[in-house]
Amino acid sequence: MKALVYGGPGEKSWSEIPDPTIVDPRDAIIQVDAVTICGTDLHILGGDVPEVQPGRVLGHEAVGTVVAVGDGVAGLKVGDRVLASCISACGVCRYCREGAYGQCLGGGWILGHTVDGVQAEYARIPFADLSTYRLPEQVPDEAAVLLADILPTSYEVGVLNGRVRPGDTVVVVGAGPIGLAAIQTARLYSPAHIVAVDKAQSRLDAAKRFGADLTVLADDDPLEVVRSVTDGLGADVAVEAVGVPATFELCTTLVRPGGRVANIGVHGKPATLHLERLWIRDITITTGLVDTRTTPTLLNMLVAGQLDTAHMVTHRYRLDEIVEAYDVFARPAETGALKVVLTRR
Amino acid sequence: MKALVYGGPGEKSWSEIPDPTIVDPRDAIIQVDAVTICGTDLHILGGDVPEVQPGRVLGHEAVGTVVAVGDGVAGLKVGDRVLASCISACGVCRYCREGAYGQCLGGGWILGHTVDGVQAEYARIPFADLSTYRLPEQVPDEAAVLLADILPTSYEVGVLNGRVRPGDTVVVVGAGPIGLAAIQTARLYSPAHIVAVDKAQSRLDAAKRFGADLTVLADDDPLEVVRSVTDGLGADVAVEAVGVPATFELCTTLVRPGGRVANIGVHGKPATLHLERLWIRDITITTGLVDTRTTPTLLNMLVAGQLDTAHMVTHRYRLDEIVEAYDVFARPAETGALKVVLTRR
Amino acid sequence: MKALVYGGPGEKSWSEIPDPTIVDPRDAIIQVDAVTICGTDLHILGGDVPEVQPGRVLGHEAVGTVVAVGDGVAGLKVGDRVLASCISACGVCRYCREGAYGQCLGGGWILGHTVDGVQAEYARIPFADLSTYRLPEQVPDEAAVLLADILPTSYEVGVLNGRVRPGDTVVVVGAGPIGLAAIQTARLYSPAHIVAVDKAQSRLDAAKRFGADLTVLADDDPLEVVRSVTDGLGADVAVEAVGVPATFELCTTLVRPGGRVANIGVHGKPATLHLERLWIRDITITTGLVDTRTTPTLLNMLVAGQLDTAHMVTHRYRLDEIVEAYDVFARPAETGALKVVLTRR
Amino acid sequence: MKALVYGGPGEKSWSEIPDPTIVDPRDAIIQVDAVTICGTDLHILGGDVPEVQPGRVLGHEAVGTVVAVGDGVAGLKVGDRVLASCISACGVCRYCREGAYGQCLGGGWILGHTVDGVQAEYARIPFADLSTYRLPEQVPDEAAVLLADILPTSYEVGVLNGRVRPGDTVVVVGAGPIGLAAIQTARLYSPAHIVAVDKAQSRLDAAKRFGADLTVLADDDPLEVVRSVTDGLGADVAVEAVGVPATFELCTTLVRPGGRVANIGVHGKPATLHLERLWIRDITITTGLVDTRTTPTLLNMLVAGQLDTAHMVTHRYRLDEIVEAYDVFARPAETGALKVVLTRR
Repeated sequence: MKALVYGGPGEKSWSEIPDPTIVDPRDAIIQVDAVTICGTDLHILGGDVPEVQPGRVLGHEAVGTVVAVGDGVAGLKVGDRVLASCISACGVCRYCREGAYGQCLGGGWILGHTVDGVQAEYARIPFADLSTYRLPEQVPDEAAVLLADILPTSYEVGVLNGRVRPGDTVVVVGAGPIGLAAIQTARLYSPAHIVAVDKAQSRLDAAKRFGADLTVLADDDPLEVVRSVTDGLGADVAVEAVGVPATFELCTTLVRPGGRVANIGVHGKPATLHLERLWIRDITITTGLVDTRTTPTLLNMLVAGQLDTAHMVTHRYRLDEIVEAYDVFARPAETGALKVVLTRR
Repeated sequence: MKALVYGGPGEKSWSEIPDPTIVDPRDAIIQVDAVTICGTDLHILGGDVPEVQPGRVLGHEAVGTVVAVGDGVAGLKVGDRVLASCISACGVCRYCREGAYGQCLGGGWILGHTVDGVQAEYARIPFADLSTYRLPEQVPDEAAVLLADILPTSYEVGVLNGRVRPGDTVVVVGAGPIGLAAIQTARLYSPAHIVAVDKAQSRLDAAKRFGADLTVLADDDPLEVVRSVTDGLGADVAVEAVGVPATFELCTTLVRPGGRVANIGVHGKPATLHLERLWIRDITITTGLVDTRTTPTLLNMLVAGQLDTAHMVTHRYRLDEIVEAYDVFARPAETGALKVVLTRR
Repeated sequence: MKALVYGGPGEKSWSEIPDPTIVDPRDAIIQVDAVTICGTDLHILGGDVPEVQPGRVLGHEAVGTVVAVGDGVAGLKVGDRVLASCISACGVCRYCREGAYGQCLGGGWILGHTVDGVQAEYARIPFADLSTYRLPEQVPDEAAVLLADILPTSYEVGVLNGRVRPGDTVVVVGAGPIGLAAIQTARLYSPAHIVAVDKAQSRLDAAKRFGADLTVLADDDPLEVVRSVTDGLGADVAVEAVGVPATFELCTTLVRPGGRVANIGVHGKPATLHLERLWIRDITITTGLVDTRTTPTLLNMLVAGQLDTAHMVTHRYRLDEIVEAYDVFARPAETGALKVVLTRR
Repeated sequence: MKALVYGGPGEKSWSEIPDPTIVDPRDAIIQVDAVTICGTDLHILGGDVPEVQPGRVLGHEAVGTVVAVGDGVAGLKVGDRVLASCISACGVCRYCREGAYGQCLGGGWILGHTVDGVQAEYARIPFADLSTYRLPEQVPDEAAVLLADILPTSYEVGVLNGRVRPGDTVVVVGAGPIGLAAIQTARLYSPAHIVAVDKAQSRLDAAKRFGADLTVLADDDPLEVVRSVTDGLGADVAVEAVGVPATFELCTTLVRPGGRVANIGVHGKPATLHLERLWIRDITITTGLVDTRTTPTLLNMLVAGQLDTAHMVTHRYRLDEIVEAYDVFARPAETGALKVVLTRR
């Protein structure tokens, strides 16, 4: 089959490699019907994730059709149409027993990381019972694939970790795809205000479409805007959706005493934590990898029409055009790309 | 009356000043029967808390007898014996309505900070209804005064913020008075292990008396000790009880994926937060000033014999010996001082 | 002044009585600008609330203008326009310290219950600092008065106690004013489905306007409807908004294993709890009086345009027409009355 | 092999039946090394649990040695010594994904209920990966078998559902084995008082040994005792550990406004819920089947010496003496039986 193979920093190719096979009774093999590219894939190509070895097939977000199942798979059969989630969960370890699937001691984020991923014609899905979700017919591939990572990540790691409540003021720093998804899923809790902060006006315009009611350029005065709607106190919740020290530090500045900073960003460098100012302010800071424990709920909400996914997918390609798709996805300022979906046909 | 007056960095004196008077209908005046010195007072004398102006009476932990009450005080009368808490709470602002008394917009930590404190023969207690607690006869002054700050602080900001649960492994970094109080109050939740870390063996010995079952010198390998009792994963909860960057950063190293870092320490400098390692680990970091919302419960527990305060008070003085008491308290390595209590008689 | 005076079961009159005066330093006196009638007032007139003595002025929901304040009132001044909440809170007792204002040991629901209420030209508001809320100019009286009881009650006792979450299926049994308010405030948490159950089709039609997406007559098969959208499991949350045994018991039938039953209804008789069926089903049942701790948040949401109050007020009267207003409110099946607002002018 | 076979109401026999075999790849077969009898088994024999069909092998609490594993079992191998829990969990259904294993749609409490149980020489354990726990060598069979049901049930359904907190007053109604286990595990949260209520003085004496500090005969005045230590308010938490209407109703009487009633008892009849008194009192009532999600923690606590199991086992038998053991266990008033353990040797 063909797959997108990582060749070391800066190197990737759409290459012929052997088809995947069942190696553990809990595996399933899927034919990939739709797949997308994550900002994390760009980090890998940038050499920031050294655990990823050359030769690895990338990708951790897919919709597919089951073509083979191991003897230990109870809930799937050949022909099932499934979401293949970014998180693989054994279901048995101490983390899985707490629903902390992202920290699964034998799984977690492994696809396209420590085992071959889903940017390929076929893929092996470990621990298939807990790592896939059968899709109702009415959910199109393109909507479903957004539940593989970006929507549960923004919802769990941003909105739920940040404990957004009705009436809150939420500031989301970074209005790329993950920030926009955080804005969209924060709306589920009816905050009074969602303030989007970004360096690019085009992204702030997108933020308005996804549900932000206030936007501010990073180089203007985000603190002033946040204070103007919070009696001068600051935001109840600040969501970091970029992954660089400056934006994290901005979040700790924007939040009120008693507020929460929920970090979603993938960081490559340490940040400065101003404890000399924060020690007395009752701040809660959370980090996290998605657990995908909300995926069934999000899927129900998709069916119930509660999640608008139409604005998120900006570009569509055939699977064998993936190198071009990476190029478009990597230059969002020029291309306007949010999520890029590749399909079999 | 006589009071301990701050004279600017490094300067203090036991001086004659005018008696305090009722200035707001919600004030009470107490005769100070017992008072103690806090590590924060040393920070003030070190010049680290610039809001404290020369001329300010220091101190925020006292037991006293009410000698006057304002017209708006409903729950106190002259002659009542009360605990005067480190936190003053108006009861009406948005923070008070949430029980976040420490963040009270008109109060919070003000005694010995922005208004005159309790290291004096008499003291004015603002918002007296919510800031004092009538003491049952059987609770001695010396035990009660520990409920003014150190016990609720370690319990709320360390144990409750850290969400200690039965069976957990808790590591407490810093075995000074506040760390020892964190060890003692963590015991209320029956963790499987409490690991104390400090630079001084004498403090680790004290930690054992307060309930730590494992101790390790900071220069040995705390991570190795923590891992040895947690299947290699790390602590469920790490409590920072020192207030310097190195100990905070140690806490973020000692905690397992999914764990909590509860900062109690008063910090004067920023710390480095290794987000490049932590972003994926589901860490929760909390900071906080005590709210004293657990003070009534702790008082009940003191009455019920659930809190041993006998080991915490190491030195006793008359109030007019306070300059000497500061000296002893400031040199714990030599004097072995934990809490120093000064009384009227 | 004139006031609506209770004369014993079935008896009430708009009578001349002495003006209220300050009796405690924490009191305020308001001129009543807008007031409404609660279903509980009908219960009192029915003789179901024997603590209410003849001679008592009824009413516990008002908007007014401060005309006098006691010496112990810190946050109000003459001329302030305020919401007078159904709950009076001392702010100092153990319940108030936990924000459980409804259970205040010296207050709670006392207006129009154990002290004279607000269906009058003037009213004394005990514990005025915590029991009133200054109103922003842009909030009209008619909207604000709904925050005195019905909106915080349905939100706190129905939605928050029921722990409604995004994607949930919520069933609300009873589509009178309180049930409709529960439907409206449940929407803040973006449930996937809200099922309204009532005996009257006209109320179910109202339920649709307030946000229910499914409705079913009580004599049809509510369980079937609930199961049809929950994979046969039952509702995540059932809100009881009537106050009779049959509707409470229906709620315990409609809820799935692991679900929550939140009782809002004012009950006059015991219900049967089918523990022989429920003991194994992980059910949580809550009861509660409103604490009004969400009133500031709801007020912010009103200002932010998040709460539509226009559909709730169906009839408007002058204050001196209150006897007629009671008559209309007591016959909703004929009059279509939801909330009836009476104003000074 | 030999097994205890249910023969219909009142009938049981230690009979020869075929050995169990693997019927699903997720099954394991264990040799039973230790087993105990549950109060629920007596309910079954009394005919109260009609789902149990004649011919069924009873028992749901065992320690055993794995003798066979299905192809889909990942974490066990022949020879492993394991705890076989009362709850079988598929790990994949919506309840399992939330850790609500007791409500597993394909499992839950099935052993000795809808499939053959463990009061036998060998037993088939469905969903073995999630339903068994490998035992450390230092934990004896007799202690471990108490983790199969009674300890996690009392802890999860009584203590955790009741949200026991340090300083609370907890009343436990019923001082049989499950009530005693609730007393013991409530101690982990350091309540100020545990009040035990029972009809038999001998059980109250046992309650003192397990950690109750106050005891009262049911026919004396439990409310008076509870009020005497709670400023007249009532208990923070009331745990129902009997399973009859009168004791449940007593619990709702003993609890303070804002308190929690946690039902553990297995009920055969409905109870009366006095909503006419409770609607206004902020009561939370919970029911529940154990999820066993705390079993790993309890096992750690057993290893750490935090759980004293020595007082719980009063009688010991060989497995083939099980009919006699049932007789002793069924007459606790005469025999003093708490838990009866049967072992292979």
